[in-house]
Amino acid sequence: MEITQGNRTAEDESITICRRIQRLTLHLLTPTTTTGNNKLALEMLTCASRVKLNVSVEELSSYMRGKNREIQEAVYDYFNARPELQTPVEINKDDHRELCMRQMVGLVREAGIRPFKYMVEDPAKYFAVLEAAGSIDMSLGIKMGVQYSLWGGSVINLGTKRHKDKYFEGIDNLDYPGCFAMTELHHGSNVQGLQTIAIFDPLTDEFIIDTPHDGAIKWWIGNAAVHGKFATVFAKLMLPTHDRKGASDMGVHAFIVPIRDMNTHQTLPGIEIHDCGHKVGLNGVDNGALRFRSVRIPRDNLLNRFGDVSRDGKYMSSLPTINKRFAATLGELVNGRVSLAYSSVSVLKLAATIAIRYSLIRQQFGPPKQPEISILDYQSQQHKLMPMLASAYAFHFATFYLVEKYSEMKKSYDEQIVADVHALSAGLKAYVTSYTAKSLSICREACGGHGYAAINRFGTLRNDHDIFQTFEGDNTVLLQQVAGDLLKQYQAKFKGGTLAVTWNYLRESMSSYLSQPNPVTARWEGEDHLRDPSFQLDAFRYRTSRLLQSVAVRMRKHSKTLGGFGAWNRCLNHLLTLAESHIESVILAKFIEAVQNCPEENSRAALKLVCDLYALDRIWNDIGTYRNVDYVAPNKAKAIHKLTEYLCFQVRNVAKELVDAFDLPDHVTRAPIAMQSEAYSQYTQYIGFDP
Amino acid sequence: MEITQGNRTAEDESITICRRIQRLTLHLLTPTTTTGNNKLALEMLTCASRVKLNVSVEELSSYMRGKNREIQEAVYDYFNARPELQTPVEINKDDHRELCMRQMVGLVREAGIRPFKYMVEDPAKYFAVLEAAGSIDMSLGIKMGVQYSLWGGSVINLGTKRHKDKYFEGIDNLDYPGCFAMTELHHGSNVQGLQTIAIFDPLTDEFIIDTPHDGAIKWWIGNAAVHGKFATVFAKLMLPTHDRKGASDMGVHAFIVPIRDMNTHQTLPGIEIHDCGHKVGLNGVDNGALRFRSVRIPRDNLLNRFGDVSRDGKYMSSLPTINKRFAATLGELVNGRVSLAYSSVSVLKLAATIAIRYSLIRQQFGPPKQPEISILDYQSQQHKLMPMLASAYAFHFATFYLVEKYSEMKKSYDEQIVADVHALSAGLKAYVTSYTAKSLSICREACGGHGYAAINRFGTLRNDHDIFQTFEGDNTVLLQQVAGDLLKQYQAKFKGGTLAVTWNYLRESMSSYLSQPNPVTARWEGEDHLRDPSFQLDAFRYRTSRLLQSVAVRMRKHSKTLGGFGAWNRCLNHLLTLAESHIESVILAKFIEAVQNCPEENSRAALKLVCDLYALDRIWNDIGTYRNVDYVAPNKAKAIHKLTEYLCFQVRNVAKELVDAFDLPDHVTRAPIAMQSEAYSQYTQYIGFDP
Repeated sequence: MEITQGNRTAEDESITICRRIQRLTLHLLTPTTTTGNNKLALEMLTCASRVKLNVSVEELSSYMRGKNREIQEAVYDYFNARPELQTPVEINKDDHRELCMRQMVGLVREAGIRPFKYMVEDPAKYFAVLEAAGSIDMSLGIKMGVQYSLWGGSVINLGTKRHKDKYFEGIDNLDYPGCFAMTELHHGSNVQGLQTIAIFDPLTDEFIIDTPHDGAIKWWIGNAAVHGKFATVFAKLMLPTHDRKGASDMGVHAFIVPIRDMNTHQTLPGIEIHDCGHKVGLNGVDNGALRFRSVRIPRDNLLNRFGDVSRDGKYMSSLPTINKRFAATLGELVNGRVSLAYSSVSVLKLAATIAIRYSLIRQQFGPPKQPEISILDYQSQQHKLMPMLASAYAFHFATFYLVEKYSEMKKSYDEQIVADVHALSAGLKAYVTSYTAKSLSICREACGGHGYAAINRFGTLRNDHDIFQTFEGDNTVLLQQVAGDLLKQYQAKFKGGTLAVTWNYLRESMSSYLSQPNPVTARWEGEDHLRDPSFQLDAFRYRTSRLLQSVAVRMRKHSKTLGGFGAWNRCLNHLLTLAESHIESVILAKFIEAVQNCPEENSRAALKLVCDLYALDRIWNDIGTYRNVDYVAPNKAKAIHKLTEYLCFQVRNVAKELVDAFDLPDHVTRAPIAMQSEAYSQYTQYIGFDP
Repeated sequence: MEITQGNRTAEDESITICRRIQRLTLHLLTPTTTTGNNKLALEMLTCASRVKLNVSVEELSSYMRGKNREIQEAVYDYFNARPELQTPVEINKDDHRELCMRQMVGLVREAGIRPFKYMVEDPAKYFAVLEAAGSIDMSLGIKMGVQYSLWGGSVINLGTKRHKDKYFEGIDNLDYPGCFAMTELHHGSNVQGLQTIAIFDPLTDEFIIDTPHDGAIKWWIGNAAVHGKFATVFAKLMLPTHDRKGASDMGVHAFIVPIRDMNTHQTLPGIEIHDCGHKVGLNGVDNGALRFRSVRIPRDNLLNRFGDVSRDGKYMSSLPTINKRFAATLGELVNGRVSLAYSSVSVLKLAATIAIRYSLIRQQFGPPKQPEISILDYQSQQHKLMPMLASAYAFHFATFYLVEKYSEMKKSYDEQIVADVHALSAGLKAYVTSYTAKSLSICREACGGHGYAAINRFGTLRNDHDIFQTFEGDNTVLLQQVAGDLLKQYQAKFKGGTLAVTWNYLRESMSSYLSQPNPVTARWEGEDHLRDPSFQLDAFRYRTSRLLQSVAVRMRKHSKTLGGFGAWNRCLNHLLTLAESHIESVILAKFIEAVQNCPEENSRAALKLVCDLYALDRIWNDIGTYRNVDYVAPNKAKAIHKLTEYLCFQVRNVAKELVDAFDLPDHVTRAPIAMQSEAYSQYTQYIGFDP
């Protein structure tokens, strides 16, 4: 991809000249010499100080921000004007929960934000609100997610008109705070293994909800410990039979169960609620545990979109099997994953902004008898933070795409898009949240002692975000869903079926990728080649195709002796690597598209720079795999490594502009060490020294 | 290393038979076939269920525990008997600080623990006490470290007899709580850049301590916000001159400065103290910021071991330069690093114990129509936790060795041992604390939702431990010291000088390692070969030698154009990798020794298993490096990967015994999910359900 030449500035000219010198230098060197070191050293000497892009923060930022920036600013402004609603650095659990509830109520009733309405009418707007709320306090974002995505979402997506009519308004205006009671003490990931039961009593036309043993206590239920009035309870639907078994298990269904009195807020009879207590983070959310003892609810409270029970106890469903109904039920809950992936990127941006701004201000050591230098000038600090910055950009475009696809799905219900959104949301949620979690620790460490001050936020961000890896589907489990989907698609391919959109590349490329790598291109090491998006995408897709093909062979082999479950477990690490590799391919493809679509030249050049860093850093991180199959020769591996270090250095030169383009105002970043003016003196004043 | 054949049991017999079958199978396969997969699959099928070692927890544990177990048990027992002194799950900062002080006072005055005495007489005992205290509450361990290692250590190591006579008793019995005021707002790592000044006033025979600007405010000073009466203040010593400059800078020295009144506890005149506020963790430690305005202290308060000022303002020192004096001063403070490395291993053991015990109890999913299986039976969970368990063992022996060496150094002051302990403590502190920090996040994530309950401890462990990576020398800076030392040794080697003990292997091996790898052994893939300690050590040392030699070449080249500082920065990532690689070599060598020295056969076999996993997992993690120089051929890389997965599976089979051998009683681990009986019901009771 050549960058289109528009209005040429002096800066451009100098870049072009540098490039020419580089190329000339390259031509002078034969491809077999091992002077990769010298070559890059030369480049760095000749160009380093001159190839500073002139990035316009405004242009780049306006390309990045979506159409929902306005409502996010409304959220930021609301809290900026209400200091009493801002979460202090130290706050105990109980006060935090009350504050978080007041924050949500304020947003809905005072600021006029209507998340539930947006969720139904314009999901992208809904996700934008959740993201902004999470930037204020992650507990607030999650509490809103519990209320709207989980409790509200289960009512409107799993229920029918009668439920929507009855509950929509109360959920929207917070008269009906509610819970989503799925997880049990013994079962989180294995939702089909839930033990809570709902037996239909034809005499009274009611369901009786019961916790058969302590392992089935509903656990970690958000909104349950303090605020919830209702809960969507997932339980095995049992219908009476006439044989000796007494009841037949129709699989897990969802039921609306009132848990507290609408007026007195007393816990209702038969229900025992305990506080799950202090958590690692998100202590503004009141998680509780619920035990049911013969709690009776009317038959109407079954959320009956995918399965219903008639007055005389007959089961009715348009879907033929328990597994299909279960899949349809869970499928409707994908919105939580979309929201987490999207919000996790925002946490990553926030942390990277704080760490990079501080690394620019902070000076430590320097050449003898010269001033100290910024710690971001150290190669080691660039190595910690620049690929992270590149990833934040990469994830930004990928999750924007996901939100778009999700909105499209909610309109069309096209089967292919549904499948695509499901796998993509699982994969991106797992990949992005794991990456962000690791990055938060790196940011804290990269900011040294001042990164350890609570006011500088890394602690809270990490503690609050940590569980993003677990809830709405454990990441290790979600990646297996992606791998499973890929294997299914792989088999479908050989049966001539169609492939979901996101995997399309596999169809196009499997056969070419599965041949032996080209021994000539495996040695190419020129910068133009390594920065060519088609080389980068090829490398990502080659790896995925190869992993997919080899795991399919291994699965077939092991299944014969170990059975399906045993074979899966024997290949589990391989499958997880495959899933990650696929997701990385999708992210890169979207990033390359975003670079190409950027209308403004300098912004495009900056994006191209971070995109190259994203791609080459990932290839270098997995260089063993590429070397093992001789996809890259040793000289090329070395060149990739050198170029990655060089790109880190280049990105560092525009790092300030790149984080500024995330467009996070000081009243959102809040960390004194990240203030855009007088960071140190804001910090000293914060702890009590006079200005 | 062949395991000695002692009394043979049926178990041993079956292992031997399995091995024979494996070897026969191997002999049937030609070395060029790519059937590594089949081979290992066969091994796993034939041996998997039978090669379960019969590990005696008691034997293994008695080999592991040092001679200071008794005093650690005294610490555990003291707190077990004083529930009112145990830190609750939720506690605010101010209460936590008071509790932490009461814990320390209780330990010293009630339980009769005398840390300062041990520090002087038997350092190993001192470190054991700190480790045990840290297991009770990491804040307690660190507060004790501030009082004894830092404040106390500076007085007795940098001062002379008059200081010891005056302060020893009060520091020991806690009448004199004190601080170590080194770090400033603008300077942490660059201690030579400190800005606080101490001008000698010959008229009054006093030093005047001053904070010349806000950047020089002493920051993060432990014990300063609330409890400290004294501080060892690091400041540039300025002596009056007769020329126009007025004063000459003699470099950074340490001074005892009283900061609060002994009776009223009021802050003394000229001193301004503010609370640094809430931190990410360790909130039981009261960190403060100090600003000095013409604070006068008697000349005697200069800690004058390495440099003194006479009554008439003349400087006297046995050391010729500022740099040498500075090195000697910092050199005496190495004890904090030893203690952090040692305590960090204990945090790793604690976290691994909780995560592994829970992973054994927790069941989720399983083969169709069969009971669910333990999550530790999943390959992915083994991959997360088994190399971590192996590392905990590896680090255990390495830090025991460090403590031994440190004790030896304190007796002999042998120059070689001093150099060795300095580099080794820097390297191990950096390497171990970084590894533990990452592992704590992995443990939390591996335990899913229940890992997020504060009571299960991962949050506190991570938050408290996090700063271990930063204080007592930032890890990135410490690794550079190791790399610098290696480069120095490398140059010395060529000048025929002697090498410090720990690097001895470099002398023995550099020349052989720097030749081309052997293309025959690069293809060897048999289990016996891969599990041969000499192959493993060779691989680790080859990598270090190669990195050292290549960075020396690069440094020489870049120095010409960029100068020393620029060249160092250009090679920084390379230097950090070198340092880590060296430390890994040292750890492996110590681990192999510990396996060989283990007297009891089954314990030895178990240790050999984890040692092999440690070695091969590290080689696999860096397989790109090995492949790039063709140290291992593709078939061997594959065999290493397979064997690593297989060893994870084998270690899983004795994981319970291996964590039990860490010998952490339930009242120390405390997490309900890690209880050795009735974990789930202890958890439900904790949040309020009836038993």
